Amino acid sequence: MSVTAAKGFTAAGIAAGIKENGNPDLALVVNTGPRRAAAGVFTSNRVKAAPVLWSEQVLKGGAVTAVVLNSGGANACTGPKGFQDTHATAEKVAEVLESHSAGEVAVASTGLIGVTLPMDKLLPGIGTAAAELSVHGGEKAAIAIKTTDTVHKTSVVTKDGWTVGGMAKGAGMLAPGLATMLVVLTTDADLDAATLDQALRAATRTTFDRVDSDGCMSTNDTVLLLASGAAEVAPEYAEFAEAVRAVCDDLGQQLIRDAEGASKDIRIEVVNAASEDDAVEVGRSIARNNLLKCAIHGEDPNWGRVLSAIGTTKAAFDPDQLNVAINGVWVCKNGSVGEDRDLVDMRYREVRITADLAAGSAEPVVIWANDLTADYVHENSAYSS
Amino acid sequence: MSVTAAKGFTAAGIAAGIKENGNPDLALVVNTGPRRAAAGVFTSNRVKAAPVLWSEQVLKGGAVTAVVLNSGGANACTGPKGFQDTHATAEKVAEVLESHSAGEVAVASTGLIGVTLPMDKLLPGIGTAAAELSVHGGEKAAIAIKTTDTVHKTSVVTKDGWTVGGMAKGAGMLAPGLATMLVVLTTDADLDAATLDQALRAATRTTFDRVDSDGCMSTNDTVLLLASGAAEVAPEYAEFAEAVRAVCDDLGQQLIRDAEGASKDIRIEVVNAASEDDAVEVGRSIARNNLLKCAIHGEDPNWGRVLSAIGTTKAAFDPDQLNVAINGVWVCKNGSVGEDRDLVDMRYREVRITADLAAGSAEPVVIWANDLTADYVHENSAYSS
Repeated sequence: MSVTAAKGFTAAGIAAGIKENGNPDLALVVNTGPRRAAAGVFTSNRVKAAPVLWSEQVLKGGAVTAVVLNSGGANACTGPKGFQDTHATAEKVAEVLESHSAGEVAVASTGLIGVTLPMDKLLPGIGTAAAELSVHGGEKAAIAIKTTDTVHKTSVVTKDGWTVGGMAKGAGMLAPGLATMLVVLTTDADLDAATLDQALRAATRTTFDRVDSDGCMSTNDTVLLLASGAAEVAPEYAEFAEAVRAVCDDLGQQLIRDAEGASKDIRIEVVNAASEDDAVEVGRSIARNNLLKCAIHGEDPNWGRVLSAIGTTKAAFDPDQLNVAINGVWVCKNGSVGEDRDLVDMRYREVRITADLAAGSAEPVVIWANDLTADYVHENSAYSS
Repeated sequence: MSVTAAKGFTAAGIAAGIKENGNPDLALVVNTGPRRAAAGVFTSNRVKAAPVLWSEQVLKGGAVTAVVLNSGGANACTGPKGFQDTHATAEKVAEVLESHSAGEVAVASTGLIGVTLPMDKLLPGIGTAAAELSVHGGEKAAIAIKTTDTVHKTSVVTKDGWTVGGMAKGAGMLAPGLATMLVVLTTDADLDAATLDQALRAATRTTFDRVDSDGCMSTNDTVLLLASGAAEVAPEYAEFAEAVRAVCDDLGQQLIRDAEGASKDIRIEVVNAASEDDAVEVGRSIARNNLLKCAIHGEDPNWGRVLSAIGTTKAAFDPDQLNVAINGVWVCKNGSVGEDRDLVDMRYREVRITADLAAGSAEPVVIWANDLTADYVHENSAYSS
């Protein structure tokens, strides 16, 4: 049901011809109201694509009428021409929707960096998409934003009289700061922009921001949350925030499971850290260690590489008190050899690493990563050629 | 000529049976004097192997009579037993050399983490090695410290009456903070420990510390510089420091060229940074970007991934003024599309990336890295199994 699960939204996904292979590549999501409140979170990469620069400005107004998304080109590192193209795209959406302002149209793009979009195909495509807008269009929109994704990703949570739903794309470049990830969430709850912003930032901080497939951060990451108010219900903040978190968590899991070339999903839990920041730093360091990622691919419970990764951080710990479990077997105890590594069963896709810092009582933090495989190398060696 | 190129040193390399395949695995380097000054630089990983903890203490005394090195086991994360084993190793060397103190015997180990060394083979091996000590033993010592290295690495610089020579091992886990790299440098110059320390730190900072094969930092990195004074010459500091730097630079290059599974050596030069620190941060960020490393493997001049990596740093720059050249072709100008990427010839092993931050006038910084290949994944998936 995707972005049209909540009342007050229509969507469409079409093939505009941006992708040379003719696959769907343009999605349109429209908030039909009555409310048009919105919030957004964007890449923390300092090299930002034109649509990110544009949409950041749009979201400052706290209102979004429509979101137009394209795959087949990131429109990043395209100079003034790229920004003009994004602007023209928003203007075209405002025109075909007979909306009052392009300033309420968010734009998102994904694909190869450094290539100018074929505006002669994109602009007519907007008209085609607008003609196909439908309350059943959510799936098609989710399909149109795929790049190397093998499946489209959607999620919905329905509560007492209101709904949060959404779609996501992204299969590589997943990283803190939000990956090449485009996410549009919608809700029919009746909430203002400030409340949406608070809930969205809280949710992304512990979901998408802790999904680290390959440590690479994109220029285009965009997560939007739009509220139509069509349900005429204003839920309690805590309940709403939890629904947004649940949808983000589910979409984040789908991203990890579809990461480029991966054969394992690695769940890294850091416990007994002195602080949440320490736990996150340690989790990311483990998540990004190429030697460990290779070992997991080889179903080798190589806990020495976990300790080696922990040792590169500034977190509080005593090397002689570190404990590491892999799939529940404490292969490292007190910084040294623990239970028999042959007890570790690594046949399944999910691999669980627990790093016990024995340094404090911070809440456990979970970071998700993938293994490093020859397929990842192949897919990313050949991407632009 | 290795560690025995300089006068006043003997060395040996033998097979003690630590490696199950029977290859050489134990090296001994002895300073026969008259002087025994020494300096050392060790891993900055906070999880340090027992031999590193031991040798750091030895080097505080500024005098080293002998260095014993083994491959076939890192003796890292081995607890109190591991430290006792290192101590016993140093005591055995002092005993067979009839040296006055184990406190002047440095120990270095490399191999799998978390495995206790077979002391029943290592200790007798020390006697065997001592019996084979020779002024021609440098090559054999260099061979005995290999792990996944395909070739042994040595380098020598001879000046007016004095020499600096050395050996290195390391082919994976090369990273700032010094890789799984064991390096022993020797000189017959007559210098004190403080001078050696100054020259060694200056040299490693711009050579080994800027060699970043896979971003992973080892628990065992050790670089030692021993001076015998046998040449009876005390060179000027600047001339001596340059000789040490040249040997370190040569050995660092040999490490990159032999990195596990690599098919390309990537020379990343960062120019026009606001500071040296900025240049190093940007260079390392580029060096560690898995997507870029895959692209280089695929001979794809994907400059968007260079910009994406620069954008994750805190360095001073304006995204619209960044320029990137690959093998001399400025494929990115002013943050956008530059010269035709089809002009870039990437058939050769060395690939040169120049990142122009256009933010200041710091001296250029060069970081060396390798591409990411299926062979790297294979070699590191199967390492401990």
